[in-house]
Amino acid sequence: MPTPWPRFNLAAGPVEVTERTLREQGRPILYHYDPAFIEFFERTSGLLQQVFRTNYDVVIMQGEAILGLEAAAASLISPGDKVLNLVSGVFGKWFQDFISAYGGETVELAVPYNEAIDPDDVRRILSQQPDIGFLSVVHSETPSGTHNPVREIGRIAKEFDVITMVDTVSGLGGEFLSPEDWGLDVAVAGPQKCLGGVPGLSLISISPDAWRAMEQRKPKPLRGSFLSILDWKSTWLDAKRFPYTPSISDIYALESVLNQALEMGMERFVKRHQAVARACRAGVLALGLDLWPAREEIAASCVTAVTMPPGLTDAAIRDTMRNRYGVMISPGYGDLNGKLFRLGHMGPAQAHPTILAAQLAMLERSLADIGQPVELGAGVGAALATLTDWDDAADFARRGSLKE
Amino acid sequence: MPTPWPRFNLAAGPVEVTERTLREQGRPILYHYDPAFIEFFERTSGLLQQVFRTNYDVVIMQGEAILGLEAAAASLISPGDKVLNLVSGVFGKWFQDFISAYGGETVELAVPYNEAIDPDDVRRILSQQPDIGFLSVVHSETPSGTHNPVREIGRIAKEFDVITMVDTVSGLGGEFLSPEDWGLDVAVAGPQKCLGGVPGLSLISISPDAWRAMEQRKPKPLRGSFLSILDWKSTWLDAKRFPYTPSISDIYALESVLNQALEMGMERFVKRHQAVARACRAGVLALGLDLWPAREEIAASCVTAVTMPPGLTDAAIRDTMRNRYGVMISPGYGDLNGKLFRLGHMGPAQAHPTILAAQLAMLERSLADIGQPVELGAGVGAALATLTDWDDAADFARRGSLKE
Amino acid sequence: MPTPWPRFNLAAGPVEVTERTLREQGRPILYHYDPAFIEFFERTSGLLQQVFRTNYDVVIMQGEAILGLEAAAASLISPGDKVLNLVSGVFGKWFQDFISAYGGETVELAVPYNEAIDPDDVRRILSQQPDIGFLSVVHSETPSGTHNPVREIGRIAKEFDVITMVDTVSGLGGEFLSPEDWGLDVAVAGPQKCLGGVPGLSLISISPDAWRAMEQRKPKPLRGSFLSILDWKSTWLDAKRFPYTPSISDIYALESVLNQALEMGMERFVKRHQAVARACRAGVLALGLDLWPAREEIAASCVTAVTMPPGLTDAAIRDTMRNRYGVMISPGYGDLNGKLFRLGHMGPAQAHPTILAAQLAMLERSLADIGQPVELGAGVGAALATLTDWDDAADFARRGSLKE
Amino acid sequence: MPTPWPRFNLAAGPVEVTERTLREQGRPILYHYDPAFIEFFERTSGLLQQVFRTNYDVVIMQGEAILGLEAAAASLISPGDKVLNLVSGVFGKWFQDFISAYGGETVELAVPYNEAIDPDDVRRILSQQPDIGFLSVVHSETPSGTHNPVREIGRIAKEFDVITMVDTVSGLGGEFLSPEDWGLDVAVAGPQKCLGGVPGLSLISISPDAWRAMEQRKPKPLRGSFLSILDWKSTWLDAKRFPYTPSISDIYALESVLNQALEMGMERFVKRHQAVARACRAGVLALGLDLWPAREEIAASCVTAVTMPPGLTDAAIRDTMRNRYGVMISPGYGDLNGKLFRLGHMGPAQAHPTILAAQLAMLERSLADIGQPVELGAGVGAALATLTDWDDAADFARRGSLKE
Repeated sequence: MPTPWPRFNLAAGPVEVTERTLREQGRPILYHYDPAFIEFFERTSGLLQQVFRTNYDVVIMQGEAILGLEAAAASLISPGDKVLNLVSGVFGKWFQDFISAYGGETVELAVPYNEAIDPDDVRRILSQQPDIGFLSVVHSETPSGTHNPVREIGRIAKEFDVITMVDTVSGLGGEFLSPEDWGLDVAVAGPQKCLGGVPGLSLISISPDAWRAMEQRKPKPLRGSFLSILDWKSTWLDAKRFPYTPSISDIYALESVLNQALEMGMERFVKRHQAVARACRAGVLALGLDLWPAREEIAASCVTAVTMPPGLTDAAIRDTMRNRYGVMISPGYGDLNGKLFRLGHMGPAQAHPTILAAQLAMLERSLADIGQPVELGAGVGAALATLTDWDDAADFARRGSLKE
Repeated sequence: MPTPWPRFNLAAGPVEVTERTLREQGRPILYHYDPAFIEFFERTSGLLQQVFRTNYDVVIMQGEAILGLEAAAASLISPGDKVLNLVSGVFGKWFQDFISAYGGETVELAVPYNEAIDPDDVRRILSQQPDIGFLSVVHSETPSGTHNPVREIGRIAKEFDVITMVDTVSGLGGEFLSPEDWGLDVAVAGPQKCLGGVPGLSLISISPDAWRAMEQRKPKPLRGSFLSILDWKSTWLDAKRFPYTPSISDIYALESVLNQALEMGMERFVKRHQAVARACRAGVLALGLDLWPAREEIAASCVTAVTMPPGLTDAAIRDTMRNRYGVMISPGYGDLNGKLFRLGHMGPAQAHPTILAAQLAMLERSLADIGQPVELGAGVGAALATLTDWDDAADFARRGSLKE
Repeated sequence: MPTPWPRFNLAAGPVEVTERTLREQGRPILYHYDPAFIEFFERTSGLLQQVFRTNYDVVIMQGEAILGLEAAAASLISPGDKVLNLVSGVFGKWFQDFISAYGGETVELAVPYNEAIDPDDVRRILSQQPDIGFLSVVHSETPSGTHNPVREIGRIAKEFDVITMVDTVSGLGGEFLSPEDWGLDVAVAGPQKCLGGVPGLSLISISPDAWRAMEQRKPKPLRGSFLSILDWKSTWLDAKRFPYTPSISDIYALESVLNQALEMGMERFVKRHQAVARACRAGVLALGLDLWPAREEIAASCVTAVTMPPGLTDAAIRDTMRNRYGVMISPGYGDLNGKLFRLGHMGPAQAHPTILAAQLAMLERSLADIGQPVELGAGVGAALATLTDWDDAADFARRGSLKE
Repeated sequence: MPTPWPRFNLAAGPVEVTERTLREQGRPILYHYDPAFIEFFERTSGLLQQVFRTNYDVVIMQGEAILGLEAAAASLISPGDKVLNLVSGVFGKWFQDFISAYGGETVELAVPYNEAIDPDDVRRILSQQPDIGFLSVVHSETPSGTHNPVREIGRIAKEFDVITMVDTVSGLGGEFLSPEDWGLDVAVAGPQKCLGGVPGLSLISISPDAWRAMEQRKPKPLRGSFLSILDWKSTWLDAKRFPYTPSISDIYALESVLNQALEMGMERFVKRHQAVARACRAGVLALGLDLWPAREEIAASCVTAVTMPPGLTDAAIRDTMRNRYGVMISPGYGDLNGKLFRLGHMGPAQAHPTILAAQLAMLERSLADIGQPVELGAGVGAALATLTDWDDAADFARRGSLKE
């Protein structure tokens, strides 16, 4: 007997997308060298620059964001390069594997997985080890529900002429970002998180310094590979050709979500995520649950990580929400499995009071179902109390865009 | 500047439909005499019989449910016929216009618009006036959020050989219905209410007595008109022809929603509506608001009508919900405008705890926004407290059908 | 075993619609009194005026075009009114039933069903019978594949102060039309023919004279009925209300096809239909088949009616095309059944050389399959020979709209 | 001014997909660890085995087919390994770059790009060079419109215990394939060619010998990379986990096209491609054009490559078809640019007489437009003449699946 599909996918990504995105994704498939597709891809790239708020080149690699992260390591790191890898969670830790795989030497700066990196520590290490050439950092640690101060870290790195690789997969759209101003050389995002798109692409902004570093990679630049970012420079950026067949319908969906974000404006777009995340935390706390992040200031916009209550299991909470009420949320990931669960509020379809209320209400109902003491309505009420200046009409003043 | 589209259409119908319905509605357009369409229409008719739980003929007229209602009057009533019209709301009252337009003489049995018809009164009148040939009744009075005891009324009418015309436009799927067993001769439903479909069709079940009455209409049976139900008998039922071009994509959508209802099973389908309506009423009461229906027993499953709080206006409440939070609910209709507002919970996409929680939460937030004293979370909490035996997994055991 | 769906629906309507239409039809369902829907309906009405090329009021009735035709008769004709009914085919003949049903007296001017009305005959009759108050005419007789000189007829009627009712169901978009200039008082079109939309609506343009005539109908104006056009005046036109629930998704589809037509421009839109029809006739003739219309000048743009070759049956030709090649075309209709078959080329998705070539080729292949002598390729070749100035790039200069 | 989208994308892939595929691709986005998605992915994998007609493991890598090809090289080849690379076209030649990049030593067996590999030559070389461990071959050389005798080649390789890597990107669905029987160890296909799906995935069947070879790769097996096939073994195949986020909507589309192929049956599916390709070649020859492949026996099913007529340019032919008639075909690729153009007939939406007729007709019309002597209709006629036993009804006997 097949498992029923959920009512709401409120997991840590991929998340549900808007009706408009599904519809615009469904355009007929163009040949990638059709002039209409070339124009479409070019327009999409321009929209992506606006969403990144950058004038840097952007590259849309045709695989889920981990491709962009591995490609950054593979394209930049030469054997023996020293890379300062900042670790505040599962994804930060994992990046070390890419560093090693491509011959780099990792210098690790780690904090507990419910904490964020302190920029002063970055400065200290870079001062002490001037041969560090690269720095890798996760902007938004989805597994921990935390974010790192990428602005400060990037600026410090620039002082030391260090090339930065930023995993902002779940950051773009949920946190502010400014590649030039913040000194971020390679920033890798995914469409399926806060942008609310479909998975299958890596969205990368690349500074001139990063291009230069890729060209200088030893023993030779990485070319002729699915992992090569340079291939996209010599084909798409320089000649409007493709290194291989792009994922046509994923590009349709990407254009759609970029338009939706820009119609709202990136500032409003990010602030909506932040406001909903804040409300979610208020709701969680009102239910007597503990937030996983050590402090609210470092809590991410994309998901709210909740410490697993003593005596409860992932299955008890999550399966009840999923089976009885059709609401899918995420468990702890990797080393964090069993220690926390995560409430998602990403993307224009979900970073909204209605969906948050639905989610918190089903959490309350589920906790009660499994015998937890819970004052029904308390979480929703506390969340609502924080949402005093929400205003769809103002946010969508430019266009009623998510469904139309 | 265009008005942004709402996040949730929780009005009194048409309501939002499931993703599956939208998708299956979008099949390519067939010629109506294509053999594949003939089969499709036949299959859909068979599904409709199952949803009506009847072996009577069913006719799918190609216009919104009011067409079916007018068609029933036009096809059945001969000049001078006496029709007992039961009035417990705006729609019941309006039916009198159709009776008059087609030459009937109305005998009215009316109750206040927050009340339901008492079957004993029906029996009394039919006893007193044996020349009454027809009875018209509204099963679910959407404007009042009430329902009438159609089962008892229909059975009484049968005792007196009276032909019944039942407006179950918002009843089918939300309330139980059993044409043969309850003595309902012509029952007119709409796909866009509790079935969760798109508007544009009238769904009609017709007893042999009703067919006979149509054939005996004076001065002659109604044929050759968009209003003729008999046309559908002589074309579709008897010869698999169409009296005119059917609305192809509306039929696609209808087949989809009928399948979705039957995959859940009509009993579960109706009970879900009833459970959500009950929870909604609990939430409304917990917020210190008054229900419009005189008693909970007569409250409808499709919408919850809430008495307008003293000093508040429709605009204050509804516009806040719509503009600030993107939630569309319905005002009072016709004579009831300004006296109540209505929270919708119709159709498989909306008769669900998640959506109810979202709706009540936004009502709470909106009341607070306009300065009403409200304990945030209280409504949602009271609603959740009633939903102790919800179980999506059990309800969708046969197929996870709404999104897939 | 279910019948496979066809590859191409090239019938006499409803026809296949563009990918864009299917997609835009699939927007989420709005409540009809949602401000976003009110705006949408208003914008759609404005687009419809542009497509009709009129400043007259337009009304979108919520049922297939036959509703509009019956509504015109029902709303205009008072008992005893004399109506000159022009008959050049099945649909013209049928209109007489509506005239009779609503108490009118028919004066018939008929020609054989492969001919067109001669305006001089109209003038003669109107001169002879000055008490004729109304004239009804079919612009494009889909069953015969012919069109009538509505421009001349309308102007003559105006000279005699006669109110005209024009069935342009399959005319709008395929033939030119100009209500004011041509003296057309009530013109009824359908979206599912040359506009390439989905069936379920009547598109009506109404002159001030026609409104006046409806108000003066005896014994009283028709109001409070699904057949009433006046209801739309007092609700929608005057108060932005609806007489009943409109067919939301049909309106979405209508807006889409109106936009597509206007993006091309009505002049180009019509000329494309005419060019493809001309090419189709050349192809048919080159295959040694006979056109049904007596002369090419009166052949319609929407379908090409082909005289059934001696010794062949509808089933032989059409079933072969449908079963073996998945191409659905239309038989003769009503009295014309068995006498002709019809090749459709309606709507932006089908009025195109590619589809015409596919259709003619499958006709050729099917004729050969059933043993007819046919020079394979001859029909396609002859059709291609006429298409010397086709230019998609020019036609879509404003927007590549059908798929995007 | 934006370029209008084409009417028909008849290029060398990605190709247009069926309406059903577009619709089923548009399901709401599931979280990849939702139990419903796990089931969906598992079901899809099972369907893929049936389409490959294999019991070998299948892996669905989440990037366009070139990812699978590079992954095969990266996962199998150890430094110093000798690889016999069979070159009969652009794609075969390119594979050498992957061999080199991953440290292999290429032994090349090349034929002109309009020819196919002779299995006897393979046997000879493998006999002469027993240290050859791997063999790479392109099944269907899309740029040349040719196919290689993979059955014979694979069996010979097995005799010599050579591991085969087969690029059947445009082969699967258009040519027969039988991994076990033919001795194909790693076969890489793409959904966007003959299967008629959307690009973005690599479909790979893997023999036990291939798994073993990957485990034995030196200096160590390739793991922890987007290029690693083994990662999919340890995650998906062994533990129903994912190495990273799969491309949800691409998987939806894949499941749809696999179902569509299997509903027809793979034998019929392939034979349809072959029949249309044969008809296309007849049409081309009848127009006085030359086929690029040296012999018809080696012509591919996916595209028909046509030698560029003397004095004509790609732009003259292709731009006319695209701009004037909205038909997109493909140019020569890589070294073959300017030497040929390609008519596509891939996938269930396009491997059909209707589309072939449309394509050939527009080619004829375009040739005439640019002043080439051409007998209009001759190509279509010759193509039709070959299609004597086409039968949609028989092919779709199990289900009318492409549109419904």
